[in-house]
Amino acid sequence: MKPVITAFERSPDRGRGLGRDMPVRWALEELGLACDVRLVSFAQLKEPAHRALNPFGQIPTFEQDGLTLFESGAIVLHLAQAHAGLLPDDPAARARALSWMFAAVSTVEPPIMELSMLKVLDRDKPWYEQRLPVVEASVRQRLADLSRRLGDADWLEGAFSAADLLLANVLRRLKTSGLLDEFPNVAAYVARGEARPAFERAFAAQLAVFNRAG
Amino acid sequence: MKPVITAFERSPDRGRGLGRDMPVRWALEELGLACDVRLVSFAQLKEPAHRALNPFGQIPTFEQDGLTLFESGAIVLHLAQAHAGLLPDDPAARARALSWMFAAVSTVEPPIMELSMLKVLDRDKPWYEQRLPVVEASVRQRLADLSRRLGDADWLEGAFSAADLLLANVLRRLKTSGLLDEFPNVAAYVARGEARPAFERAFAAQLAVFNRAG
Repeated sequence: MKPVITAFERSPDRGRGLGRDMPVRWALEELGLACDVRLVSFAQLKEPAHRALNPFGQIPTFEQDGLTLFESGAIVLHLAQAHAGLLPDDPAARARALSWMFAAVSTVEPPIMELSMLKVLDRDKPWYEQRLPVVEASVRQRLADLSRRLGDADWLEGAFSAADLLLANVLRRLKTSGLLDEFPNVAAYVARGEARPAFERAFAAQLAVFNRAG
Repeated sequence: MKPVITAFERSPDRGRGLGRDMPVRWALEELGLACDVRLVSFAQLKEPAHRALNPFGQIPTFEQDGLTLFESGAIVLHLAQAHAGLLPDDPAARARALSWMFAAVSTVEPPIMELSMLKVLDRDKPWYEQRLPVVEASVRQRLADLSRRLGDADWLEGAFSAADLLLANVLRRLKTSGLLDEFPNVAAYVARGEARPAFERAFAAQLAVFNRAG
């Protein structure tokens, strides 16, 4: 059976593909797997039916053959472990890809989300001007570390993998911040991810949802 | 060969076991695996030798037989996949454990770390009194969601697993906040984790480092 994933009925990012359904859509496209997408409203997120799928009331969820998963990182890893093409064959390289997958969502993403939330929620707060440079500095530190490690490599561990997918995905949120441009090799890395046909198909699919919702 | 992990030479938490070496120590103890611990100073974290192991200049790192890993979540998952005892045998339950492992480090931990950093770094800032209830509310929301799902179960997916290990580990940081006490089943869940002999051995080992450093 085709998996069913959930996504927002109305994208709060106006179709920029920053929802957490995006890495799951991208992974499915990379693996050549079809899926059905069930759209949910913000109100539905908090209802028992959705919380049975994701206890934290978030998207995406993933359902297939009686298995229910949540957390985009876990869903991408599950798909990458179940199908060939998104993880190296070599066991050591495969383990290293795990390091990068966790780094993407637990070391790189948190300061990026903090910056994003600060800009969205606190722009009119008295502390905005003082907090902004502090949070930007923490994002910049991660980008500098990543830039140094990436060097002139195309991808983190040889060929494109689920680690690049998750990392490029979280970095995309910085595109309008100007911070990515300070690290040209990181900006180019994100652009390489976005140029992949599988990314383009996934992006178009989520954009179609936004355009339909109008 | 025994694995080598890194930990702080001087624990910034005064021996409370909140460093990210703790979940790795705990997992190794659960699996009955010995390790060597190399202690690093804060200055060493930023040096090229350490950055070769962890590009983001953090602890822990994990080295064994030529393989180098970073990110505590990835190291725990690697150990749990390589040795029996920390993941369910059933493939669906195993996949669900992945969801919880990612949820622990990327959904539950970020607001907890934000609260912790606010209290440590911003206590004297003009925005402290206004930000505190906002960040506490985001932590409380995660705890309420978790409490509802956990119900009166001992562990997340049947027997104790790597998912419980990572989740209980991130929740421990709330012990002095008072927030955990608002959700008795979550507080009891953390206490069950801490009562495990493997946790106690891991805790004692990191405390010995703190006591030796004086």
